[in-house]
Amino acid sequence: MPAPYTPAMSDSIFSKIIRGEIPCHRVYEDDLTLAFLDVNPIAPGHTLVVPKEPAVTIDELSDDSAAAIGRVLPRISRAVMKVTGAAATNILQNNGSLAHQAVPHVHFHIIPKTDSHGLGIKWNAEPLDGDAGAEMGRKLARLL
Amino acid sequence: MPAPYTPAMSDSIFSKIIRGEIPCHRVYEDDLTLAFLDVNPIAPGHTLVVPKEPAVTIDELSDDSAAAIGRVLPRISRAVMKVTGAAATNILQNNGSLAHQAVPHVHFHIIPKTDSHGLGIKWNAEPLDGDAGAEMGRKLARLL
Repeated sequence: MPAPYTPAMSDSIFSKIIRGEIPCHRVYEDDLTLAFLDVNPIAPGHTLVVPKEPAVTIDELSDDSAAAIGRVLPRISRAVMKVTGAAATNILQNNGSLAHQAVPHVHFHIIPKTDSHGLGIKWNAEPLDGDAGAEMGRKLARLL
Repeated sequence: MPAPYTPAMSDSIFSKIIRGEIPCHRVYEDDLTLAFLDVNPIAPGHTLVVPKEPAVTIDELSDDSAAAIGRVLPRISRAVMKVTGAAATNILQNNGSLAHQAVPHVHFHIIPKTDSHGLGIKWNAEPLDGDAGAEMGRKLARLL
């Protein structure tokens, strides 16, 4: 029998920002989400969208908070593109220090991409093996 | 007066997958979203979550489709972590060829991160200038 679900809780710098204990350049807020400028941007207009729910990683986040963030990504992306003039963007959400997560509170980066600024991506792809893919797909589908 | 909103439409390989004209290793599906294995993975279990709505980029996607994708990210992430054993993940969504978008249909990558596989990130951050940040924040907030 699986252990009861006990999500990790975070009281990071982002919780302090959400509570207003630390200032931020706030760009959007609703009941479940807050968006503000990253204080260490990799491009002008680099914006963070966070849930008010203090989950550390996406797998611990409630469906409703995750949906609320998803819902505002198009809207905030349009504003970031309009203000910065960037025609391309990356949205990135990292889970775990190995995956480059620096603050232990879920956050989605919206990062304008231009010739001079933005996310650098190293992408070492290999074609999916048919048999391995079929087995992986079946295993995942059974859990979903 | 602004031009009426006319979202870009896509009939890419992902639309063909959604319509069942091209096979995929499907792991999850609901009314608005489909998730399947990337055929050119950068890690075992590399999964794509796409809206059925044929938007090219996130800024063109409807709020409801974006919310539907957000809602399933925790659930699919948990399955990917469980099946692969990876404790860390990156979620990445690219908009525009400059931002590494290869298929012109919105897609969220869920990529397990391990010592040997996953997303490579180049991150050249600079501290946000206070005055420039305040101005950028005001401009964005006014649009949101």
